[in-house]
Amino acid sequence: MAQGIVLTGDRPTGPLHLGHYVGSLANRVELQNSYKQYVMIADVQALTDNFDNPQKVRDNVLQVGLDYLAVGIDPHKTTIFIQSMIPQIAELAIFYLNFVTINRLKRNPTIKAEIAQKGYGENVTAGFLIYPVHQAADITVVKGAIVPIGEDQLPMIEQANEIVRTFNRTYGVDVLVEAKPLISEVPRLPGLDGKAKMSKSLGNAIFLCDPADVVSKKVMTMYTDPDHIRVSDPGKVEGNVVFSYLDIFDTNKDEVKELKAHYRRGGLGDVVIKKRLIDVLNAFLDPIRTRRAALEKDPDYVMATLLAGSQQTREVAEQTMREVRAAMRLDYDVRDKR
Amino acid sequence: MAQGIVLTGDRPTGPLHLGHYVGSLANRVELQNSYKQYVMIADVQALTDNFDNPQKVRDNVLQVGLDYLAVGIDPHKTTIFIQSMIPQIAELAIFYLNFVTINRLKRNPTIKAEIAQKGYGENVTAGFLIYPVHQAADITVVKGAIVPIGEDQLPMIEQANEIVRTFNRTYGVDVLVEAKPLISEVPRLPGLDGKAKMSKSLGNAIFLCDPADVVSKKVMTMYTDPDHIRVSDPGKVEGNVVFSYLDIFDTNKDEVKELKAHYRRGGLGDVVIKKRLIDVLNAFLDPIRTRRAALEKDPDYVMATLLAGSQQTREVAEQTMREVRAAMRLDYDVRDKR
Repeated sequence: MAQGIVLTGDRPTGPLHLGHYVGSLANRVELQNSYKQYVMIADVQALTDNFDNPQKVRDNVLQVGLDYLAVGIDPHKTTIFIQSMIPQIAELAIFYLNFVTINRLKRNPTIKAEIAQKGYGENVTAGFLIYPVHQAADITVVKGAIVPIGEDQLPMIEQANEIVRTFNRTYGVDVLVEAKPLISEVPRLPGLDGKAKMSKSLGNAIFLCDPADVVSKKVMTMYTDPDHIRVSDPGKVEGNVVFSYLDIFDTNKDEVKELKAHYRRGGLGDVVIKKRLIDVLNAFLDPIRTRRAALEKDPDYVMATLLAGSQQTREVAEQTMREVRAAMRLDYDVRDKR
Repeated sequence: MAQGIVLTGDRPTGPLHLGHYVGSLANRVELQNSYKQYVMIADVQALTDNFDNPQKVRDNVLQVGLDYLAVGIDPHKTTIFIQSMIPQIAELAIFYLNFVTINRLKRNPTIKAEIAQKGYGENVTAGFLIYPVHQAADITVVKGAIVPIGEDQLPMIEQANEIVRTFNRTYGVDVLVEAKPLISEVPRLPGLDGKAKMSKSLGNAIFLCDPADVVSKKVMTMYTDPDHIRVSDPGKVEGNVVFSYLDIFDTNKDEVKELKAHYRRGGLGDVVIKKRLIDVLNAFLDPIRTRRAALEKDPDYVMATLLAGSQQTREVAEQTMREVRAAMRLDYDVRDKR
């Protein structure tokens, strides 16, 4: 096993899609062979902007759990846990709030962008504004040292590490561990519509749980080259979503290269390349769907897996908290020897 | 037993003084006979502005515990607990943060005044700004319905009740209980220097643990009437701290009345009334000091009492959290029957 604990996770606000697979899930399936890995289903964080729709969050905890197991995150190698089942995270977050000013939180570029995007303005809830502090608790409670993220999440790691350093310095300890970001080098999967990001809310996603016919229909709507009207027209490959996907999912790189050349010089219709992509995607998704279908028949097993992972995480988190409480002189139940 | 659970407490930042006794401790010794009462030693709250001095907070948890038991808060009637030992409070506070905007917190008059007084300005920590939310969790986690407070703390109860109403409305439940303030009708005990408030930080306090000779010295410095130079001069009783104290602590009301008349017409020296007050205060404090001295010899018993109260509180808090988690659909370990 390589050194360092990996902490990563998702907000359970919808089923996971191909963008998640390419951006993070595939990586986790690899990382679990080399690292102790925790994967968190971040229901508490999801509630910060879904507090009035808890059933949505609840339902998606199971859906995300199904997706994890279906893609091959192995509960024997990876500890999958539900955030709200680790009360130590809340305890730690409350302590961390003393190390961060409101102004510092407002300057966090990730939060700043999200507040603008969601139009919260000055009416941002305390829960939303402080979520980077909560995230610092997520990471440090399991002593996460490696956090796979996208580039846009770098300010969150910086904020977490600031808290770690302040805590250790204030209490003269080395209880908390700084985290290193592991930036994904995989190009981001565009949405069906050609937008840079695939996302449920943009309605441009192919979900890991989409049946074959849904995948077919979605691929047929894919953005290609608006100037490629007739089959005989030369077409553009850059920005053409079908080719972006073939680049990632088609294992026959030589044939993809030939198809691109053919498309560029004209004579290759969109329907042909889309049909190929449908086959490629369904071949990729079929084993995932098969495993998911089996797991869907036994939701109790899936939930039991998440509960067992949460129990394991609680034990690790409680050990961290024992050290944190000792550092903060809150260990009243330990006989005072000083 | 009267209906309604009482929740009250103190920040462990110093030993308790006569101002605490008059303002709240005496009341608690009464309330415990009629109500289920929880008294919280608020170490987490004390850390919001003492996070860099945890040993001070730690030491004063024991001191405050000693004071409680010495004045007659009876652990068989009152549950005394240490705030940090109830992780459910942190869990609940994190959820509540979703119901409160940063702007609303900044408008809280109590917090606004405290931020100005402490000179935090825009550099207020998140921990300090959100402490009314944490306080809402303190109260509601034990379903506190009656909260004895000073008038200046009314905005805190209002804030807590706003959260209660929003929570219950959002989740369509009546899990949380609104709290009623119980405003103290006792006049506030002035400081030795005549300032309106007795406080450790103002250096004008008589502590419950002050030995007799310290009490004597402090009373001799007490503010009386600066125009009462010679014994034969007529003196003012209003604003004269010695008489304010005699009014409260001297059980012989008729003699106090006579002394006041005598002082007003002249011929009664400050030393005479101060000596009387010294006797009165030491007579009042003696049994408290005796109990405290005995308890000080057995700090393990005191801490065990606080730990036992914390354990009882955790059980009550966990029951509340079961209801809260069910309302928020976070009860994953309860088999889904819907």
